[in-house]
Amino acid sequence: MRGVVYEAPHEMRLASLEDPRIIDATDVVVRVSLAAICGSDLHGYHHGDAMGIPAGARIGHEFVGTVEEAGAEVRTVSPGDKVLAPFWISCGTCWYCREELYTSCERGGCFGWPAMWPGGGDVQGAQSELVRVPLADGTLERVPDALAGAEFDHRVLPLGDVFSTGYHALVGARPGPGETILVIGDGAVGLMACHAAQLFGPASVVLAGHHPDRLELGRRLGATHTVLGEEGDLRALLGGLTAGRGPDVVIASVCHPGVMLTACEMVRPGGRIGWVGMEVFFGPPEIPWDLAWLKNVSMTGGVCPSRRYIRRLWPLLEQGRIEPSPVFTQTVGLEEVPSAYAAMACREPGWVKVAVRP
Amino acid sequence: MRGVVYEAPHEMRLASLEDPRIIDATDVVVRVSLAAICGSDLHGYHHGDAMGIPAGARIGHEFVGTVEEAGAEVRTVSPGDKVLAPFWISCGTCWYCREELYTSCERGGCFGWPAMWPGGGDVQGAQSELVRVPLADGTLERVPDALAGAEFDHRVLPLGDVFSTGYHALVGARPGPGETILVIGDGAVGLMACHAAQLFGPASVVLAGHHPDRLELGRRLGATHTVLGEEGDLRALLGGLTAGRGPDVVIASVCHPGVMLTACEMVRPGGRIGWVGMEVFFGPPEIPWDLAWLKNVSMTGGVCPSRRYIRRLWPLLEQGRIEPSPVFTQTVGLEEVPSAYAAMACREPGWVKVAVRP
Repeated sequence: MRGVVYEAPHEMRLASLEDPRIIDATDVVVRVSLAAICGSDLHGYHHGDAMGIPAGARIGHEFVGTVEEAGAEVRTVSPGDKVLAPFWISCGTCWYCREELYTSCERGGCFGWPAMWPGGGDVQGAQSELVRVPLADGTLERVPDALAGAEFDHRVLPLGDVFSTGYHALVGARPGPGETILVIGDGAVGLMACHAAQLFGPASVVLAGHHPDRLELGRRLGATHTVLGEEGDLRALLGGLTAGRGPDVVIASVCHPGVMLTACEMVRPGGRIGWVGMEVFFGPPEIPWDLAWLKNVSMTGGVCPSRRYIRRLWPLLEQGRIEPSPVFTQTVGLEEVPSAYAAMACREPGWVKVAVRP
Repeated sequence: MRGVVYEAPHEMRLASLEDPRIIDATDVVVRVSLAAICGSDLHGYHHGDAMGIPAGARIGHEFVGTVEEAGAEVRTVSPGDKVLAPFWISCGTCWYCREELYTSCERGGCFGWPAMWPGGGDVQGAQSELVRVPLADGTLERVPDALAGAEFDHRVLPLGDVFSTGYHALVGARPGPGETILVIGDGAVGLMACHAAQLFGPASVVLAGHHPDRLELGRRLGATHTVLGEEGDLRALLGGLTAGRGPDVVIASVCHPGVMLTACEMVRPGGRIGWVGMEVFFGPPEIPWDLAWLKNVSMTGGVCPSRRYIRRLWPLLEQGRIEPSPVFTQTVGLEEVPSAYAAMACREPGWVKVAVRP
């Protein structure tokens, strides 16, 4: 099959690879209908060597596709079924999976991040024609029939990671109806947080970012206000919306140590910060603890257990109450993936998130 | 009247002072029946100059007493009423007070901490015979008749700060029945958190500290297990109690930058940390953000809006379901307060928290 592999920092390559196959009886092999490039894939693109990603590894962990072959012990999906993968593999039966904290599964790991997979390097990424899925019963979600056609792939795929990650930040921060939400960061996750925010009945959703094209997209997706760049403008806008108090909820969707500082400064006393950025690659965030103490700020977040949310989001997707597909600004074939990484990495205007049709 | 004043670091003095009087029509003057020395008073004792506390200032913010005189606009209490003061003054009517976040009151401030009081230095501490209480209707809580006798003062007083602060940490961290709670720190707040933990139906309450006498007191107050000193022992105990996962909830009640590091390491994935320590005086805590991200750790806490809890805790106190008075290991007269500060500050065995009977 064809698949994209990591060679070295800033060097991805389309390669001819052996087809993945069933190794354990709980595996399936999925033929990819639509994959994507995630913001976190860019961490690998930039820092793969430091992260222990070997040359020839396949990164990428977002895909929807059709079951091609199923191991003898797989019970919940069959060849021909349309399935969505969350980005994290999970057994479905351990203590954490029963708590729906699938990202802490005792046997789990992330597609395409060998360092995060206790089972070793045989779990490969998804920017390819076929993907082996271990622990299929505990990992995959069947796509409802009404959404199973390839024409719905761009709506379905975001539930596996980018939409559910934005949603996860909100769930942790518990916005209530009539509240004001600030989303810091106009990347794909921030945009999806603006979109998911609608489900909580906010009075205002303010998106702060540095890219006019992304802010425009944020307005299409549900932001009621956008602020470009300057922190003073943001403070003035938020003050006006909240009688000077600040937003009730701040979603920190940026991988930058300063984001929590800004979030703590902006959020109102008693407010909640939802954070999902992988600051792991950028050093610990700057948290003004005296301010957080005096303001009684809550901070909740982490890596998103997407599988917790997917089955609950299907009805909203079917009803059209969420429509996350505009987050994909391009759809490319496998041969264009290396150049798409480069475009996303340098924040080329108009390139927010790339879908991949193998 | 007689009252204790701060002179210089490590120097408190009993002084003869002018009686406080009604300044604003919303003031009352309270005759103190029982006051206390708080762990946070020790910050002033050690670092008063750096904190901007002037010589001659009265620190101390915990007291129960009887209304001696009430300003013309005071509606909810009258001379002769037994009242409990939360440590924070609040107007009772602003946006934050209506949210019961009294510590963010737009007109409020803390007794005895001039730097925290926008109205200036006329709000004095409580280690004295009389205290002026501004904004009395928004600040004081009437003590129920059944608890109004002086013989109940040691039970009533902790609700104004030390018990409610431990309780506040728990409320933020939301322990559920059958869960395991770790309390880090055997100071008065940690001990009260062990006691308050009973209200949430935990399977186990583990108290970790460095003082055998305080751990013994913790067991009397509700800790099911105690660990002295070594982190390895703590990890082993918690592992045994939780099948290796770690506690569901960690209460960080220590003023030390390392406490959040320990808390993040110990707490189970998906667990919640409640923090109430004033790290403001010790620099920002060390938070292992990559671990917090991967484990989906929630961090909630801050300065306790005690008034939110007092009226809800009265019935539990009347029913005997909470009995916080053992936190007071000594009761002294005003003349002994200076030496009591010294004993608490050097962690003299047996001196956990001192009550003051003027």
